Amino acid sequence: MSFTEQKNTLLQQVIQAWTRLQEQQPLVQCITNSVATNYAANILLAAGASPAMIDNPFEAESFANVTSALSINLGTPTTEQMQAMLISAQTVDHKNTPWVLDPVGYGPVLKWRSSMVDQLLAFKPSVIRGNASEISALAGKQVQAKGVDSTISSHTVYRQAQCLLVHSECIAISGEADFILSRELGLVIQVNGGSYLQPKVTATGCALGALIAAYSAVTTPTIAALAAHLHFAIAGKLAYEKIASVGSFNVVFMDYIHTLNSEMLLQYADFQLISL
Amino acid sequence: MSFTEQKNTLLQQVIQAWTRLQEQQPLVQCITNSVATNYAANILLAAGASPAMIDNPFEAESFANVTSALSINLGTPTTEQMQAMLISAQTVDHKNTPWVLDPVGYGPVLKWRSSMVDQLLAFKPSVIRGNASEISALAGKQVQAKGVDSTISSHTVYRQAQCLLVHSECIAISGEADFILSRELGLVIQVNGGSYLQPKVTATGCALGALIAAYSAVTTPTIAALAAHLHFAIAGKLAYEKIASVGSFNVVFMDYIHTLNSEMLLQYADFQLISL
Amino acid sequence: MSFTEQKNTLLQQVIQAWTRLQEQQPLVQCITNSVATNYAANILLAAGASPAMIDNPFEAESFANVTSALSINLGTPTTEQMQAMLISAQTVDHKNTPWVLDPVGYGPVLKWRSSMVDQLLAFKPSVIRGNASEISALAGKQVQAKGVDSTISSHTVYRQAQCLLVHSECIAISGEADFILSRELGLVIQVNGGSYLQPKVTATGCALGALIAAYSAVTTPTIAALAAHLHFAIAGKLAYEKIASVGSFNVVFMDYIHTLNSEMLLQYADFQLISL
Repeated sequence: MSFTEQKNTLLQQVIQAWTRLQEQQPLVQCITNSVATNYAANILLAAGASPAMIDNPFEAESFANVTSALSINLGTPTTEQMQAMLISAQTVDHKNTPWVLDPVGYGPVLKWRSSMVDQLLAFKPSVIRGNASEISALAGKQVQAKGVDSTISSHTVYRQAQCLLVHSECIAISGEADFILSRELGLVIQVNGGSYLQPKVTATGCALGALIAAYSAVTTPTIAALAAHLHFAIAGKLAYEKIASVGSFNVVFMDYIHTLNSEMLLQYADFQLISL
Repeated sequence: MSFTEQKNTLLQQVIQAWTRLQEQQPLVQCITNSVATNYAANILLAAGASPAMIDNPFEAESFANVTSALSINLGTPTTEQMQAMLISAQTVDHKNTPWVLDPVGYGPVLKWRSSMVDQLLAFKPSVIRGNASEISALAGKQVQAKGVDSTISSHTVYRQAQCLLVHSECIAISGEADFILSRELGLVIQVNGGSYLQPKVTATGCALGALIAAYSAVTTPTIAALAAHLHFAIAGKLAYEKIASVGSFNVVFMDYIHTLNSEMLLQYADFQLISL
Repeated sequence: MSFTEQKNTLLQQVIQAWTRLQEQQPLVQCITNSVATNYAANILLAAGASPAMIDNPFEAESFANVTSALSINLGTPTTEQMQAMLISAQTVDHKNTPWVLDPVGYGPVLKWRSSMVDQLLAFKPSVIRGNASEISALAGKQVQAKGVDSTISSHTVYRQAQCLLVHSECIAISGEADFILSRELGLVIQVNGGSYLQPKVTATGCALGALIAAYSAVTTPTIAALAAHLHFAIAGKLAYEKIASVGSFNVVFMDYIHTLNSEMLLQYADFQLISL
């Protein structure tokens, strides 16, 4: 199959995943940070999923047993959330429920969370997503980051990330262009679009991780990552065409997350395939 | 008094409550979830009240002693918040300060919070509010919920909820139509309006609970529940008439929460009375 | 130097600080409350800084060692955040990294946080900012507050606050007019502007404290406080000229926080100097 044929197939699978998301409205357990919790829940609702921010250790097992997908984000962990992450990840791993790991701030400065991420890898996340600094650090490189923001380009990192495919079927790196590494397909997908304003809205990366989890309830890890990245890239591009400052951008971005449909996916999806 | 006369009396009492809310700007202590905390505070400010999100056990008693109302919401509890809930509920019960209980996620999957809700009932909440699944589970029915979202209709639940009037003067059930059961009046009030986009914005139910608490500082539990539900239903209806996607809807909804006045209450209040 | 000359010098320093903020995008560690965390991060991003909400005690020291500024806010503390505050404040004090203390709710009702504020003063905050009730209570006066909102005017408080200059180089009091006391300059700066809608949006004071911290990474404490207050006052004034209800105001306010530039500072800065 040529790259052109494969691209068409992938886009059809993305549209199918979007349609299923609307039909099934899957339940998504999110253990996320204090900055992202409201925003990620609103993104999931706008996109068609059912978020539940269950992040205490006392209900983590019973809830992970019923959820359709799990999203774990290390942004501002508490001791109780850390316990909930371990319990929930172990539970969904046993049940073969898909889950997404977002190792926010991974690196030598933030050791507590980085050590938890190392433990969580044992529960085989369906997708690992992060910015270039986080993914590069996770791939064992010595990286400079600026707090929880990346200081390097996603273009320079995606080849480093190949070694992470031993932990997960799919690695998704966000940046000016996004890169999705797929073990299943043996290739890299570059997703273009979005807007330079997107990193000016906090928690967009965190909400993207939650949306990948939502899609993973209705499709494969690679298609889930691709669908969520396209969903964000198209909404970001269209919002930016209408509006140029960050407060209004965020409102219109949420509008487009909600109104995106298969026609818009067909018209605006901008991605290309790269050999691994 | 006929239902028509009683409706007019209730609407006058709602308008009086709204006026008092603007004049007194009552202090409302909220112990709420991480998704709702910013949103509920903004709803209370926009509506005219003074929110204070004091949710630690070390200040719970002293603050509950000075607050004009208390709102407790079980969305994403931590151990410290659970302790604060017990202390604050006990304190306001002793002082006869009104308080609202929102048993988010009540049911067999989420046992930790459900057991806390059972304990909190001993402190006689002025109003219990929840979605249909939560209220049905609290009434002892075997219910399917989807995470923290309801899977059943408020229409089918309000008769089940009658047994809960032993715990509270008022039970408020939100859904496509809202139902308010009043022990004081011995009847059910059905509130119509709102928009199908309202459940697409996270934490609207939680913020509604906080607004009932705010109104309960200036009126009876039944009028407080009715006023808060009308406030939300009218703002939701008017926002939806202007705007059709979820990001912009949420902005305009907040605008109408702030600009609602007695004329709008008179013009748009849509509710009917049903015998218990 | 006359007050008029001094005003011009201060405004030039503010413009220089704003320019440096855009160039350096300093990393700002925020330990803040659950209401403010998303909002403060968005304000910092919109204004040009890099927020990182690292608030756990296990990473507090290593992160405070690399941050360019620290913002500590006592709105809704947890035990773990309290530990993180002490560790981070001690760390930045050792490194001479600037930091801002926002003693939300300081006073006799909320003893736990007030006692923590008293301890934190030992680590010499670069700026202490709060509303009139908080600053008055911190200055040892017997004050009535309404929850976390002020019940007294900033005009009556700024002279009381002079005694606090033993703890900090700069005291910033927000209210209808804002007052900034500078030990370095030996005077008081009154900042006018803003909108009556600003206190109707929750966490604006908390976000202002975070923005002072961001500016303090690139200038002196006094100029940092003045720059952040002018940034807010101008954005608030311009937003209110466009829009009159609270949901839309908040969106446009964020737009102006992002689009403010040196021309707007020159045109709209409204402040005056008062002898201490």
